Amino acid sequence: MTHALSRRDLDFLLYEWLDVEALTGRERFAEHSRETFDAVLDLTADLADKYFIPHNRLADANEPRMLPDGTVEMIPEVKEAMDAYAESGLIAGTFDQAIGGMQLPTVVARASMAWLQASNAGTAAYPFLTVANAALIAEYGTPEQIETFVAPMLEGRWFGTMCLSEPQAGSSLADITTRAERQDDGTYRVVGSKMWISGGEQELSENIVHLVLAKTPGGRPGVHSISLFIVPKYLPSGDGVGERNDITLTGLNHKMGNRGTTNTALAIGDGTHRPDGQPGAVGYLVGEEHRGLSYMFHMMNEARIGVGFLATSLGYVGYLKAVDYARGRAQGRALGAKDPSSPQVPIIEHADVRRMLLAQKAYVEGGLALGLYCSKLVDDQVTATTGDVAGDVGLLLDVLTPIAKSWPSQWCLKANDLAIQVHGGYGYTRDYDVEQHYRDNRLNPIHEGTHGVQGMDLLGRKVIMQGGRGLALLAERIAATVAAARDAGGDAVRYADQLEAAWQRIVEVTAALWADGDATVALANSSVYLEAFGHVVVAWIWLEQLVAVGGRAGDFYDGKRMAARYFYAHELPQVGPWIDLLASKDTTTVEMNPNWF
Amino acid sequence: MTHALSRRDLDFLLYEWLDVEALTGRERFAEHSRETFDAVLDLTADLADKYFIPHNRLADANEPRMLPDGTVEMIPEVKEAMDAYAESGLIAGTFDQAIGGMQLPTVVARASMAWLQASNAGTAAYPFLTVANAALIAEYGTPEQIETFVAPMLEGRWFGTMCLSEPQAGSSLADITTRAERQDDGTYRVVGSKMWISGGEQELSENIVHLVLAKTPGGRPGVHSISLFIVPKYLPSGDGVGERNDITLTGLNHKMGNRGTTNTALAIGDGTHRPDGQPGAVGYLVGEEHRGLSYMFHMMNEARIGVGFLATSLGYVGYLKAVDYARGRAQGRALGAKDPSSPQVPIIEHADVRRMLLAQKAYVEGGLALGLYCSKLVDDQVTATTGDVAGDVGLLLDVLTPIAKSWPSQWCLKANDLAIQVHGGYGYTRDYDVEQHYRDNRLNPIHEGTHGVQGMDLLGRKVIMQGGRGLALLAERIAATVAAARDAGGDAVRYADQLEAAWQRIVEVTAALWADGDATVALANSSVYLEAFGHVVVAWIWLEQLVAVGGRAGDFYDGKRMAARYFYAHELPQVGPWIDLLASKDTTTVEMNPNWF
Repeated sequence: MTHALSRRDLDFLLYEWLDVEALTGRERFAEHSRETFDAVLDLTADLADKYFIPHNRLADANEPRMLPDGTVEMIPEVKEAMDAYAESGLIAGTFDQAIGGMQLPTVVARASMAWLQASNAGTAAYPFLTVANAALIAEYGTPEQIETFVAPMLEGRWFGTMCLSEPQAGSSLADITTRAERQDDGTYRVVGSKMWISGGEQELSENIVHLVLAKTPGGRPGVHSISLFIVPKYLPSGDGVGERNDITLTGLNHKMGNRGTTNTALAIGDGTHRPDGQPGAVGYLVGEEHRGLSYMFHMMNEARIGVGFLATSLGYVGYLKAVDYARGRAQGRALGAKDPSSPQVPIIEHADVRRMLLAQKAYVEGGLALGLYCSKLVDDQVTATTGDVAGDVGLLLDVLTPIAKSWPSQWCLKANDLAIQVHGGYGYTRDYDVEQHYRDNRLNPIHEGTHGVQGMDLLGRKVIMQGGRGLALLAERIAATVAAARDAGGDAVRYADQLEAAWQRIVEVTAALWADGDATVALANSSVYLEAFGHVVVAWIWLEQLVAVGGRAGDFYDGKRMAARYFYAHELPQVGPWIDLLASKDTTTVEMNPNWF
Repeated sequence: MTHALSRRDLDFLLYEWLDVEALTGRERFAEHSRETFDAVLDLTADLADKYFIPHNRLADANEPRMLPDGTVEMIPEVKEAMDAYAESGLIAGTFDQAIGGMQLPTVVARASMAWLQASNAGTAAYPFLTVANAALIAEYGTPEQIETFVAPMLEGRWFGTMCLSEPQAGSSLADITTRAERQDDGTYRVVGSKMWISGGEQELSENIVHLVLAKTPGGRPGVHSISLFIVPKYLPSGDGVGERNDITLTGLNHKMGNRGTTNTALAIGDGTHRPDGQPGAVGYLVGEEHRGLSYMFHMMNEARIGVGFLATSLGYVGYLKAVDYARGRAQGRALGAKDPSSPQVPIIEHADVRRMLLAQKAYVEGGLALGLYCSKLVDDQVTATTGDVAGDVGLLLDVLTPIAKSWPSQWCLKANDLAIQVHGGYGYTRDYDVEQHYRDNRLNPIHEGTHGVQGMDLLGRKVIMQGGRGLALLAERIAATVAAARDAGGDAVRYADQLEAAWQRIVEVTAALWADGDATVALANSSVYLEAFGHVVVAWIWLEQLVAVGGRAGDFYDGKRMAARYFYAHELPQVGPWIDLLASKDTTTVEMNPNWF
């Protein structure tokens, strides 16, 4: 049996919980219906089965190689998958019809992409990055740039990347040294080195559209001098490509996991190629000078939610495989079974194995629900009828984004850890998939803003901006869920009390941390804050699901009830000591002297 | 700079805390002195630098291969290291002088082995297993078996393995199907399949001494029909080896980490070789029939503490590398630094990086201290002057063993996770060592009894056996530390209160779980019990260290103080919700129906 995500769960989340079908009542999605949404999911599953799942482990075992001519060699199955995916048209899912898109709700497109991420994280990265890149140019580019660069990306002929980091500047983008100089014809010449660029070189697409951050003269120092450029691998020419631009692969990074995706060091404008005979790579400015980082953040926020989906998807597929394994693997007997000649029982009968499976279920279904909730917010934002509503939804999304990125990166990695443990020794071998999922997933707390960066973003910016309005908006949503849970009755009432109390503590500790305005103390344990906040948010998401389950009968719904029960019994209470620590304004980490390590 | 463990920390733990020098006052160790102990540690570090550290990553990237002739090919550096180690004589460290040993205290020998494990986990496994094997035969074998098998192992000419698991029987040893039949000459013929056998085939040693569990006729079903056999790869002949025995490599397991150690599937007595022309492999019974598992547990308990050391060592070396990296890597600026043109600061200046380093320090130094404490108990047991004292020390060791195995396997793996995170994207690449340490360490919660098995062992057996005497003995030790901490004054007083309260809760919840004798409910969350118990034990070990630090000044001691402070502020409080869960006798995992996943 192949596994990716659970279609039954997706149907529940999309239709029974988020009522995505109702989106078709909005003008932007009026041509859609549940049938078109289902067709997208069916098509995705079909592509996954035929093209993505079969080469997942193969691509891991045969990572891309850099050849002496500076090109990249990889197994042919990747290109076959990409060609099939391009053929499907899914890459254009969320884009406006006016530029060749399907105007699909983001929540449906994300579900589709998550299915591919679960099937083959390495290969899915190429369209994932391409969609993010195209969305940015579609938002901030000129009509000509959209026609030139976005159109071929939506057709799957060209792929995209995002080039932010440099060897000396990862988390600290203020310190990039790539520079661009304006030319008389309005184009720029770009020179610098980029690092950690996923998909930065490949032979899968006819062209690669790099979005490159570079500093331009003028502007205040630091991030305020950064502009954004389109730097294509080949300069566009007519409907196709022309001269080679001066952006050159200098090395591939060899990673623990996620090996199917090339991860590159790139030299820009080092003279390897000299387009038009001039030094420097040709770059096309996006939007205005010195606003590059704000444009990139548009892409980065989407990418962060996408990383959350990637983490969730890898956790999810590992969970499904662990359940299968636990049903099939006989080992040991029930407690108190005295007869050693009785047959062994499937390990799913053991309480500790069920604990590990329940934890995985709570993490991965919670992560998927959170990601889809955020994606639906994107749809709500895009289709908002007033600017105020759009602003509020955007603000709520801003607050939730660090959680949607970091929580699955932490807990769905933990799910992969537990999936290995359920498999025992077999799970530690490369004969089973779960060790690869674990290695693949370890990337997610690092890229698109590390765990620590997310904590600083949440506590240092998101919960206090606009006078804490984002936090207040989230409080409203949580209060509504608490009220609905109390109406629903049963266990939900007790969970509602737990959630209300935990949320109240989050609000109080947020205020207490900032009460005396000392950022050093307030942010000393921002990662702990991130984790406490995240667990409370996911408790809320679980209560949301439980309310949606209502009184429905059946294995699926009983499973949701038990996962919610697990989360409220085993997980949410862990928040207590974390908040206690924050409330104590503990400065152990601040006072630690580097010489004492 | 090469890294393994910290010699400064070892000196503190061995001499300033455990007063290992005082062991030389006991008859068994009378010929030793601090000088001989130091010489062992110096020699180990020298061997590590010259032979173990240099090929650690090489062995990972070039795992052993099975050749068509059934032999194993591996990089030559492994044999060079093994030959140098054999030459050093360290393998005979703890053994009696009467059989060629050095009568070194176990605590010193373990420190030496831990240094090698930190240097190269894969290669260190061969002598590690050989020592454990030789110790078992030395304990339960006949004088002839000791002369024949132990002597060449102590000389490093032959290596040893332990063959317990089979494809259908990992955690459930009652279900092994390997069988042995007694022959007229008193030897046995053994037939069966073994799985997950580390070091089960290699060309490093002249012979391989397998210790094999097999069922013999008679005896009650299940574990009570299991006997223990020596099944050498080559039958002994004179001082060397003779005919090939019928134990044959059928496959190598390809693992996520720990790749330097061959991990094998073995066919025993499948007719590939027919020693003496007869079917079955020749086996020599150790001790009495049907008592095999109890003998093996002697080895297994030592091996479990050894696995704890392995986990600690991998965490430790990763921590040292993370500290180095954090001192050297410049990224970002202090909070509130307004000038983006000011130089970037080393990331060790960031509170969140210090948090990650402090956590690692607390985990790995705590794990090392715990392991050495248990090892010293072995020395106390061996040199006890009365049977009662030896019995009590053994009982305390029994209670601590599941913690010494599982706690480092969980938290020093977490340390490796944090070491990667400190390195950022670089840590995810194979250009840095930390990703290998993380992969290597992931084995440890699985082998020698999974995490779940340790939890069942602790809660289901160790804390209740002999009317809870083991638990009472641990309580006495903790009470003594609490009293000493109160005498010491300062922060230690507050920690003593915290520890006393947490320990009291452990004692109470242990009684409550068993109050109505329902094992299903009592053991439903035995893994949670294991984790809560473990954190309290390590809190005690940290308080022990703090008392030993006393008022001493200097960076090293300040580091110990801060790590203790970190553990009591960030870690110990997490125990609260775990014990609450246990006290609630939560049955979520029991009530979960497999169909609901």
